[in-house]
Amino acid sequence: MESSWTTAAWELLVTAARSPRRARGRMLEDALRQAVRSGHIAAGTRLPSSRELAADLGVSRGVVTEVYGRLVAEGHLVGRQGAGTWVVDLPRQAPPPAPIAAAPLVDFKPGSPDLSLFPRAAWANLCRKVLTEMPHAVLDYGDSRGFLPLRTELAALLSRRRGVVVDPERIIICGGFAQALSLVARFLRTQGKTLIGEELPGDSKGCSIFGPAGVSSVSIAVDENGMDVDALAASGCHAALVTPTHQFPTGIVYQPPRRKQLLEWARDTGGLIIEDDYDGEFRYDRAPLAALQSTAPDLVAYAGSVSKSLAPGMRLGWLLPPARLLEPLAALKHGDDRGRPVLDQAVLAAFLRSGRYDRQLRLCQRTYRERRDTLVRALADQLPEARVTGVAAGLHAVVTLPASFGAEDELVRAAADVGVNVVPFGRYGGTGPGFVLGFSHLSATTIDKGISLVAAAWLT
Amino acid sequence: MESSWTTAAWELLVTAARSPRRARGRMLEDALRQAVRSGHIAAGTRLPSSRELAADLGVSRGVVTEVYGRLVAEGHLVGRQGAGTWVVDLPRQAPPPAPIAAAPLVDFKPGSPDLSLFPRAAWANLCRKVLTEMPHAVLDYGDSRGFLPLRTELAALLSRRRGVVVDPERIIICGGFAQALSLVARFLRTQGKTLIGEELPGDSKGCSIFGPAGVSSVSIAVDENGMDVDALAASGCHAALVTPTHQFPTGIVYQPPRRKQLLEWARDTGGLIIEDDYDGEFRYDRAPLAALQSTAPDLVAYAGSVSKSLAPGMRLGWLLPPARLLEPLAALKHGDDRGRPVLDQAVLAAFLRSGRYDRQLRLCQRTYRERRDTLVRALADQLPEARVTGVAAGLHAVVTLPASFGAEDELVRAAADVGVNVVPFGRYGGTGPGFVLGFSHLSATTIDKGISLVAAAWLT
Repeated sequence: MESSWTTAAWELLVTAARSPRRARGRMLEDALRQAVRSGHIAAGTRLPSSRELAADLGVSRGVVTEVYGRLVAEGHLVGRQGAGTWVVDLPRQAPPPAPIAAAPLVDFKPGSPDLSLFPRAAWANLCRKVLTEMPHAVLDYGDSRGFLPLRTELAALLSRRRGVVVDPERIIICGGFAQALSLVARFLRTQGKTLIGEELPGDSKGCSIFGPAGVSSVSIAVDENGMDVDALAASGCHAALVTPTHQFPTGIVYQPPRRKQLLEWARDTGGLIIEDDYDGEFRYDRAPLAALQSTAPDLVAYAGSVSKSLAPGMRLGWLLPPARLLEPLAALKHGDDRGRPVLDQAVLAAFLRSGRYDRQLRLCQRTYRERRDTLVRALADQLPEARVTGVAAGLHAVVTLPASFGAEDELVRAAADVGVNVVPFGRYGGTGPGFVLGFSHLSATTIDKGISLVAAAWLT
Repeated sequence: MESSWTTAAWELLVTAARSPRRARGRMLEDALRQAVRSGHIAAGTRLPSSRELAADLGVSRGVVTEVYGRLVAEGHLVGRQGAGTWVVDLPRQAPPPAPIAAAPLVDFKPGSPDLSLFPRAAWANLCRKVLTEMPHAVLDYGDSRGFLPLRTELAALLSRRRGVVVDPERIIICGGFAQALSLVARFLRTQGKTLIGEELPGDSKGCSIFGPAGVSSVSIAVDENGMDVDALAASGCHAALVTPTHQFPTGIVYQPPRRKQLLEWARDTGGLIIEDDYDGEFRYDRAPLAALQSTAPDLVAYAGSVSKSLAPGMRLGWLLPPARLLEPLAALKHGDDRGRPVLDQAVLAAFLRSGRYDRQLRLCQRTYRERRDTLVRALADQLPEARVTGVAAGLHAVVTLPASFGAEDELVRAAADVGVNVVPFGRYGGTGPGFVLGFSHLSATTIDKGISLVAAAWLT
């Protein structure tokens, strides 16, 4: 053990060893991260073995291994097989890090799949199989629209599960939904069409995607039937970004007359409908609704991704533009990055072909339905004043409270004080007090605990 | 065997069985691809087993397996384990394909690494290791600039091997060099700086990258000392895209006075130097030259990729912009695609950390040096009139011929007639007659054969 460790070690141990036993892992992780970032533990310091540290803290060795693993993944530590774990040399020019808030005990942030469901072993097996079998030429520059076998498998999947009208030649494989939307926005800009209507309430892409793409957005109200198409028409927008099969975050479904009106708007004005099918797969109580694109493939640019079914870190999605937009969008994609990396595409193609993707969707759906049921039950039991909506599908619920509960930001703070993170409905432009609670990444126990904690905090 | 096969089978066999035995695999592949694309063999047709077809054609079974494998990879066929090989249902709306030219026997196209050197087994092993060990959170949305452990390893590599001044916080992981350049061009455009100087001769990015990014380019002459900086200054360009350590395609190295003049241009005019370090690793006769960025990190946006050292299909590269450009470029990257896929990044980080990447570079360098030597020797023996330049580094040679040999396009046609593809120097704006010959992807035997064939064609 190096000398610089021994000094720092005590402080860490004092903080972590004082905590309740089950919180010690998290305390150790936070303290260690902060100590490395602040330079409190010098670069090059060798940390004690997981066995030693676990004994000192009175936790199992696995707890320490996991903490080290996460800090290695973040780049704060490096682990060398058989040579222990070391503190990395963090860049000296980097600005001093902000103080780190303790992670909440229960985080109801919406939009996260359960990353532990990622099929790691199957993916590794298929990766080996693909690397063993594929011809060398596949590793060369390929079609910028994506690996054809993947586009072929996806066409079959999307036609079967989402009713989408599709041809492998018309699919562009993208870096998640984000790149699909960015390409469409940049294409519109080249046409001088720079105004895009977004849903309100909604998850605005304004600053993060539309800004860099050089277009602007206008918020258009959503009611229980869908986007207000009269307001859209009056806005002079050139395109509308919509989530018609499960609106984010309200969970409403665009009703047939509104769908029809939206398509008429597109036909009459030459406007483009951009359909974000972000969680269309996860409908719990009936068969999934077909995508809007299924009824008007020439008016709708349809996009989706594996971010909810596999993991956001895969950055794998697809864009199916109307036929007339295919060529300019493919040229933009080619100019951007010459297409996506081929290995992940080949593995996903094999995953689809083997039927494993359907199994993965069934696994996610079963898991998330149980968690939704747990959340709904917990709210009914512990917070009967809450109104729960939008839970027929998707990975989150909208929970609104009577005005008597107080202001949203006070409720958020009260929840934070008991270790629970809740995202206010107001952040998406919704009228509260209310919250958008993501449940898909949380175990039943955690959901129960989180609701108990906020109910106690809000009801006292 | 299905009935639709038996009819089509004969025609394929007639074409392929008539060819010389060693060309039968290629003939079969071309004929089969064309038959599937044209609908000559119907979708859903089951092909004969590789054993049957090999026997019919008098070739080894491996030849047929390889042909089937390539057509499966291209999406023309599907193979199901134990269930044979089938013709896929190609989209009916697709335009009729252009007639397929037979692939050349020897293809001297420049810029291709030997894809058979890709470390498939090591990559599959590390992929499994990464998937086994990484914390779940790594699969979530990450830093759009890239996976920090990879940026940390790359910083060490680039500083050590290329002399680059680097800080992991300043690296942006990109989709190959293409995305790095596209981001820089799009950033310049937001500043109203829309004119970029490119090298002549050079590999113009004008139509494919600059067009979609909304900027224009001007060709600036390159002489034996580097880009003509007086001409660059007179052009009013806002940026210059250069390959200073091994100019593409001439192979000249920017000389110190010219480097100095270029840096002064940038300092005086606020112009940006974009350094494409496309094959800086592969210098054969002396130690690699440090990148231009090493002397002026605040004037140069440096970019490189694994396209030459691993494979273009990885779409993995890096951009090191001057500090003042980091934030706007990172915002553009975030708006584009929220960062690159994490698995490849984690595997490459592990590959670098283990020392395997250095071994890979040594393997490539040794292989490519031998092939360069073979090419130079073959030319000296068979085509002593040829002048060979630019071979101190890189994956290609510039070969010029006396004017008495005739016009470049006639020489290209004469080579094509004997089955050899050569890319004329004129395609890159060079003065011929001459050719840019890529050698890195060809075996010594193939190089010898190719040069013998063109020498015979050109000297008669």
